[in-house]
Amino acid sequence: MLDLAIRNAEIVTAGDRIHAEIGIRQGRIVSIAENVGLARQDIDAKGLLVLPGGIDAHVHLEQPQGGGVVMADGFESGTRSAAAGGNTTVMPFALQQKGQSLREAVDAYHAAAKGKCYVDTSFHLIITDPTPQVLGQELPALVKAGYTSFKVFMTYDDMVLNDRELIEVFDVARREKAMVMVHAEGYDATKYMARRLEEAGKIAPYYHAESRPQSVEREATHRAISHAELTDVPITIVHVSGRDPMEQIQWAKKRGMNVYAETCPQYIALTADDLKGLNMDFEGAKYVCSPPPRDLDSQKAIWEGLRDGTFDIFSSDHCPFRFEDAQGKDAPGARTNFKWVPNGIPGVETRLPILFSEGVSKGRISIERFVELTATNPAKLFGLYPKKGTIAVGADADLTFWDPERDVTISQSLMHHDCDYTPYEGLQVKGWPVRTILRGQTIMQDGEVLGAPTDGEYLERGTSKAFTKLVDAHASVRSSRSASDGHGALL
Amino acid sequence: MLDLAIRNAEIVTAGDRIHAEIGIRQGRIVSIAENVGLARQDIDAKGLLVLPGGIDAHVHLEQPQGGGVVMADGFESGTRSAAAGGNTTVMPFALQQKGQSLREAVDAYHAAAKGKCYVDTSFHLIITDPTPQVLGQELPALVKAGYTSFKVFMTYDDMVLNDRELIEVFDVARREKAMVMVHAEGYDATKYMARRLEEAGKIAPYYHAESRPQSVEREATHRAISHAELTDVPITIVHVSGRDPMEQIQWAKKRGMNVYAETCPQYIALTADDLKGLNMDFEGAKYVCSPPPRDLDSQKAIWEGLRDGTFDIFSSDHCPFRFEDAQGKDAPGARTNFKWVPNGIPGVETRLPILFSEGVSKGRISIERFVELTATNPAKLFGLYPKKGTIAVGADADLTFWDPERDVTISQSLMHHDCDYTPYEGLQVKGWPVRTILRGQTIMQDGEVLGAPTDGEYLERGTSKAFTKLVDAHASVRSSRSASDGHGALL
Amino acid sequence: MLDLAIRNAEIVTAGDRIHAEIGIRQGRIVSIAENVGLARQDIDAKGLLVLPGGIDAHVHLEQPQGGGVVMADGFESGTRSAAAGGNTTVMPFALQQKGQSLREAVDAYHAAAKGKCYVDTSFHLIITDPTPQVLGQELPALVKAGYTSFKVFMTYDDMVLNDRELIEVFDVARREKAMVMVHAEGYDATKYMARRLEEAGKIAPYYHAESRPQSVEREATHRAISHAELTDVPITIVHVSGRDPMEQIQWAKKRGMNVYAETCPQYIALTADDLKGLNMDFEGAKYVCSPPPRDLDSQKAIWEGLRDGTFDIFSSDHCPFRFEDAQGKDAPGARTNFKWVPNGIPGVETRLPILFSEGVSKGRISIERFVELTATNPAKLFGLYPKKGTIAVGADADLTFWDPERDVTISQSLMHHDCDYTPYEGLQVKGWPVRTILRGQTIMQDGEVLGAPTDGEYLERGTSKAFTKLVDAHASVRSSRSASDGHGALL
Amino acid sequence: MLDLAIRNAEIVTAGDRIHAEIGIRQGRIVSIAENVGLARQDIDAKGLLVLPGGIDAHVHLEQPQGGGVVMADGFESGTRSAAAGGNTTVMPFALQQKGQSLREAVDAYHAAAKGKCYVDTSFHLIITDPTPQVLGQELPALVKAGYTSFKVFMTYDDMVLNDRELIEVFDVARREKAMVMVHAEGYDATKYMARRLEEAGKIAPYYHAESRPQSVEREATHRAISHAELTDVPITIVHVSGRDPMEQIQWAKKRGMNVYAETCPQYIALTADDLKGLNMDFEGAKYVCSPPPRDLDSQKAIWEGLRDGTFDIFSSDHCPFRFEDAQGKDAPGARTNFKWVPNGIPGVETRLPILFSEGVSKGRISIERFVELTATNPAKLFGLYPKKGTIAVGADADLTFWDPERDVTISQSLMHHDCDYTPYEGLQVKGWPVRTILRGQTIMQDGEVLGAPTDGEYLERGTSKAFTKLVDAHASVRSSRSASDGHGALL
Repeated sequence: MLDLAIRNAEIVTAGDRIHAEIGIRQGRIVSIAENVGLARQDIDAKGLLVLPGGIDAHVHLEQPQGGGVVMADGFESGTRSAAAGGNTTVMPFALQQKGQSLREAVDAYHAAAKGKCYVDTSFHLIITDPTPQVLGQELPALVKAGYTSFKVFMTYDDMVLNDRELIEVFDVARREKAMVMVHAEGYDATKYMARRLEEAGKIAPYYHAESRPQSVEREATHRAISHAELTDVPITIVHVSGRDPMEQIQWAKKRGMNVYAETCPQYIALTADDLKGLNMDFEGAKYVCSPPPRDLDSQKAIWEGLRDGTFDIFSSDHCPFRFEDAQGKDAPGARTNFKWVPNGIPGVETRLPILFSEGVSKGRISIERFVELTATNPAKLFGLYPKKGTIAVGADADLTFWDPERDVTISQSLMHHDCDYTPYEGLQVKGWPVRTILRGQTIMQDGEVLGAPTDGEYLERGTSKAFTKLVDAHASVRSSRSASDGHGALL
Repeated sequence: MLDLAIRNAEIVTAGDRIHAEIGIRQGRIVSIAENVGLARQDIDAKGLLVLPGGIDAHVHLEQPQGGGVVMADGFESGTRSAAAGGNTTVMPFALQQKGQSLREAVDAYHAAAKGKCYVDTSFHLIITDPTPQVLGQELPALVKAGYTSFKVFMTYDDMVLNDRELIEVFDVARREKAMVMVHAEGYDATKYMARRLEEAGKIAPYYHAESRPQSVEREATHRAISHAELTDVPITIVHVSGRDPMEQIQWAKKRGMNVYAETCPQYIALTADDLKGLNMDFEGAKYVCSPPPRDLDSQKAIWEGLRDGTFDIFSSDHCPFRFEDAQGKDAPGARTNFKWVPNGIPGVETRLPILFSEGVSKGRISIERFVELTATNPAKLFGLYPKKGTIAVGADADLTFWDPERDVTISQSLMHHDCDYTPYEGLQVKGWPVRTILRGQTIMQDGEVLGAPTDGEYLERGTSKAFTKLVDAHASVRSSRSASDGHGALL
Repeated sequence: MLDLAIRNAEIVTAGDRIHAEIGIRQGRIVSIAENVGLARQDIDAKGLLVLPGGIDAHVHLEQPQGGGVVMADGFESGTRSAAAGGNTTVMPFALQQKGQSLREAVDAYHAAAKGKCYVDTSFHLIITDPTPQVLGQELPALVKAGYTSFKVFMTYDDMVLNDRELIEVFDVARREKAMVMVHAEGYDATKYMARRLEEAGKIAPYYHAESRPQSVEREATHRAISHAELTDVPITIVHVSGRDPMEQIQWAKKRGMNVYAETCPQYIALTADDLKGLNMDFEGAKYVCSPPPRDLDSQKAIWEGLRDGTFDIFSSDHCPFRFEDAQGKDAPGARTNFKWVPNGIPGVETRLPILFSEGVSKGRISIERFVELTATNPAKLFGLYPKKGTIAVGADADLTFWDPERDVTISQSLMHHDCDYTPYEGLQVKGWPVRTILRGQTIMQDGEVLGAPTDGEYLERGTSKAFTKLVDAHASVRSSRSASDGHGALL
Repeated sequence: MLDLAIRNAEIVTAGDRIHAEIGIRQGRIVSIAENVGLARQDIDAKGLLVLPGGIDAHVHLEQPQGGGVVMADGFESGTRSAAAGGNTTVMPFALQQKGQSLREAVDAYHAAAKGKCYVDTSFHLIITDPTPQVLGQELPALVKAGYTSFKVFMTYDDMVLNDRELIEVFDVARREKAMVMVHAEGYDATKYMARRLEEAGKIAPYYHAESRPQSVEREATHRAISHAELTDVPITIVHVSGRDPMEQIQWAKKRGMNVYAETCPQYIALTADDLKGLNMDFEGAKYVCSPPPRDLDSQKAIWEGLRDGTFDIFSSDHCPFRFEDAQGKDAPGARTNFKWVPNGIPGVETRLPILFSEGVSKGRISIERFVELTATNPAKLFGLYPKKGTIAVGADADLTFWDPERDVTISQSLMHHDCDYTPYEGLQVKGWPVRTILRGQTIMQDGEVLGAPTDGEYLERGTSKAFTKLVDAHASVRSSRSASDGHGALL
């Protein structure tokens, strides 16, 4: 007998939309049928859409920050917020600090996460100190242990890698078949702009945006793509913010390069003007993230990219800081210069409703594409598919029920995170996740988180699908162009 | 109890690849599960891939030709050949002759097809005489009756429509929500080139290719797209042959225009050099089709387009003539001028193996993309989805089993058509369809057609998915750009 | 001894800017030097710029119109206006009427022009009836006689050529080395749009613009370019109005095709909004021309094209109708439907000041580029160079003195044409032509036309420079790409 | 009375081609006329073309190298070779060594050049150590003193600047109005490739080319352009080698960025295959330069760029090393690894004949474009115009007479340099410079250098024309796009 049957399900995957029942046993989908037969528990999904549980592949939790500011969310509040927002898997980062062993960093994050996750999790590795030990021994061992993705930064004082280091990390990723995520902004260029602005007395949070123009993101994107071409390795450019860097990605994809791309809610729902706050005041700090939100033309471009396959995944880049902390908890208002504002905003709970409402409900993308961007492709790109990311026999029973007609006004009072604001306060959305099922167990219903922080499992991952198609291509340098599968199609 | 259970199925759809069983009752899929339970009949698919039955959306059968030449295949041999080649649905044309009522034409084709189809069929309407009666009354009535697609020609003496007529047909298609397929070659341009070649004594079959350069196809493609933009209607450019017309389609898709595209086996497996035969002799007539095959660079471009979503569907453009007839049955060798060679080659039986082998087996496209191009997208584009085109609960049980390791050399002796040659004679392929199941019944196994010419049903079709997303867009002229879904994603 | 010496001349050509004296004898420049020596007459150009006299390559004078409306300017007023506007050469059209011999048409225009030209003139031939007689005999003879350019129309009831006719004219142009000017708008498409607008009751002059969207101009441009590629002949796309057709020209030039382009003042100084008049009234008729002015984005695109070499020449398309006539002289206000408004506006007198002011004075183009666009390139493109179009030893002494600091407000009261309005009424310009010298004789000074209508000579022209570089290329079809010189560079 | 009259001159400038006489007094052109009158000396140019003397803007002379290798040419042999090759001006570099004051470097080069120049010279400044002293004081002073161009390197152990340093130099260039020339190859990327090749035992000269693929040049080009965009300064990308970096420049120019580009003879007359020598031996070292020559497709692209304005100037990048030295003078054959081969080849004497023959004689570019690329634009770009770079009243009488029909086979025996080979040995050219006139004095005739090493003067230069048009644009950051003139047109 089944453990659970979902009746009257309007099932949507990346490929199909059908009406059927879903049979679940031991947390896995064992049948999809007109009638799956008896089950210990029945859930009636009538009137709702049943989608694969959301996978948020870009979430920062409990990372240490300089300057005494701490992240607003640890694993417990972060994954609780994720479950409330319709997610069944999130992928936080394990951050190596300069001088630290990467293995130590991973152990420390496991320790921090243990018993505190409402949803399944898996770590990307942030590499800030690519010593010979890290490159030659730790990374190969960690990839074999299921940590099959790295993240590197081209900016930030304490994380930036120079070109030699980037190339060395890419070279390891090629040999070990790991996916590299790249934060693409040029370090020296942002420094130059920030200095010129500061010299001109332009220090309000808004000038954070002016200090990081699109040309800076575009240059770093082109550079990362070129290094990936040279080393012949797939990469993912994360949090792409506007038309200029997008065009680099489109160019690379058109050339057949093995380049993937991510965008985020802040680039379709915010603009640089939000950083102006009320009359250029510190309210703007609530919207400070890197790259910064751009303008309406870039929003338009991002939508085109979400439709046409320029973007493969849509993540939150959840990176929450309390506004109270940003303005200087002890001496409020002291830290007025934008250079003191921590870079990052919360979003793991609002990612899916924003894309559903602005995308699906407003007719910009199909619901199948929504599923692909928010669940199927993240699973494929980071080695979780087909266990995660789709509704199919054999997959984990990770499901999110959506009421496509539910009207909700986003507000801090609805949120389950530990941040003290949401940058989307007041945004009206149509379509809302009303139930989250993790491996057959309902962990959220109607806004109430029903699961426990011990529900989430840690996921060891396989190799990214980006490598599966490219086995032959790796025999020689730079041969990926002819042998690679199309990127839109691949995932 | 089930009528049929497919055990050990490695199921591939456009979106997913899973291992499961398929339960079938009354010709429809009622369950996909680890264990679908008892069935009257079991088929073991172990070691094979189970794909949706192929849908060939571009097949000419039993169409009258000028000059006393007849098509090599009628409905019986054509659909038999289709079944043998892994197809469960083909879409032939009902051709209106000048002066004829379109309704009469449709009736005549029904009469010809009745009881002679091994696979399911549905007709596109070829409009050659868009009289006010046809535009104002027949077309609206026929669309309502399930004939939801038209085909128009921009070339050929007895079929060409001028710009006014094209625009009028597009305008009707917009109002009635019909998909228009466009044969895009410029009539006057080909006439001019043919005359210059003939004046220079260049009359061998090969000069057919020179008389129809890519610029002529590109110009007509641009023109058709522009008319579609003006009238705000989706169109499908059929049998796209090379880089030049492709670039027009890419440009249109990038602009958000509602343009779809088809390519065919002849543009990846043949080149214009094949028309040279042996030393520019009449053997080249075996490869004469319009547009003609191009060169290796265009083949490369076509592959890029198959991967990256430029092409939505892959059809055969099966249009068979007996070589014996082409050379003049009564006075062989009399009709040496290329202008007398009927335009068209057979291909309904070889379409799927060629794309599977050259595409999937050689690593150029994923198998999911193969399914999308050859079954799912044709179903979506022409109003058959989700009844046809996928493997899902509720769909018709149209399945093709593939042995991905089977090596076959294509030869006329293997063919089931009534043509006296195959243009792919000697081509070695890896991967072969070994069983075709039509609505739960095996109609082909190991090269033997087991079905009967009464098995095929006629399919009344719904509206193309190309319209589904565009409902609001049609309120005003030229608003499709902003409201339309991405084309790669849509289908 | 010289007839005339220009002292203190700041001479600007397409290539150089130098300070020197110009020595003139018998209407020709015989020396440029620090000191040219004695002359019968001295003119001091101190403080002024001395440029080659303007050549307006696109001027309609005394052409018959249907519907009882006559053109506002004949040769006398038209060339007087040209001289006042800084021009020394204009190129009107000799229009063949359907059924008429082309030679007759040419004779008739010569008769009309005789003794009525203040500036030098030369005729382009408008071909509306390409009979075998015209194609086979008249055109070859006329080209040999110095009529080395044709114009064809892809729109207008009484002038439109179909594709077969266009190709035939292009083919003659290739053989005879004549430059073909193409009015690129799709006839059937504009008819369709006009009908839809009229059916919706949208008949104000403004809807003229909506009836001819950019897509219609773009399609015809692509079509003309394709026909030129097929026949291997250079062409000039005239009066390009916006970004869409421009992109076709850029694409063709980038491919190495032998395509040239013209734009006009109305596409940088007017927009479609001007056709709205005051609250959608008939005032808008003052701005009706084809193609219609577009929007600000297109103006921006046109400027880019003027800078970067997309455009080779800048002409007026002077085509003047009296507003009094347009509204129905006898029954004012009767002809309210845009379809009755004659297509064309005056501009021969304002062309140069508008480009000088908006382009040179505002820093958008260099003054050397101004000379190239308005004099040197028209001369090269239409076979007048080096007799006309530059300031060099051996050239005709056609000079225009410019005061770059003169501020003028354009108004009808300043005009010398016979039209009853200027569409640029109230436009403030900086930079004004203060003296026009035709072959050594001052024909305009400070706004006063000093010459006589017998001053102008008729110019038999040589072969366009577009052919000079391409001699070898014409041996075979479609070889122009590799052998042709760059287009920006060529002229 | 004139000092010199050139009779029967077919004068070609960037803008015009005319037949006239040239009158010269005190080294300057004082008249161009049908008859310039009496002169102390007459030269008859009948049958020859009279062009502006060549300006080679990229010449390395007497620069110190690491590893004991010295440059083959000092000022005396280098400028002698230049004169023989039809040049009247060359622009060598004054190279700052790390730790050295820039002023000292300049003084040292003046000392080395003094009395040893057959043609006029002017130095670009190579900045390798941008200390605050250099940036804040030396550069501003040197620009004011007429050193109005810098060169920076993005590669080479002892010259590479990092991004911060590049941006700082660009920022100074913006403030002081200096043109920056950029050697664009990514340092870390070439290091990585060289290491991989060396690890694989691939050390023959040919692998120099593989160690510096186009992607590395493209990335650095994009990076340099982005830094220039950020700092709002014009730059010149030098020695562009192939399609990939070209596309970056085309993109930048199309965006209206103030980017200029240079290419060289090695990229149209050599390919990477030349580096293979005879069977991958050390002969290949004769062709080692950076960036390396590419392939035939890139040669094709370079020709397109020479035609269409992508390239503004054509220089030699003369950087001569003796083959004898390269292979290890003391222990021949010892230095077999490509990393020991000095990067650079001779070319100052062959630059003009190669472009004339392959470009003008073969019909790829017009002769006016030849003049523009080799004389007029270099003068405009580097502040020498109109004193140098054209034939006009007031300009220096720098003239080169060309015999367009002269057939010559390039060989080392014809060369006047001190290098022991020419990489163009055996190349047959049509068109040859037969006389070089420097400020009115013949310094070369029929291959014999007649001048003295004291003839050349040092040229203090003005501001690049690239700045002239951009005065207003510099008020704000990144405003150059809208206000800048077109780049093809500007020069």
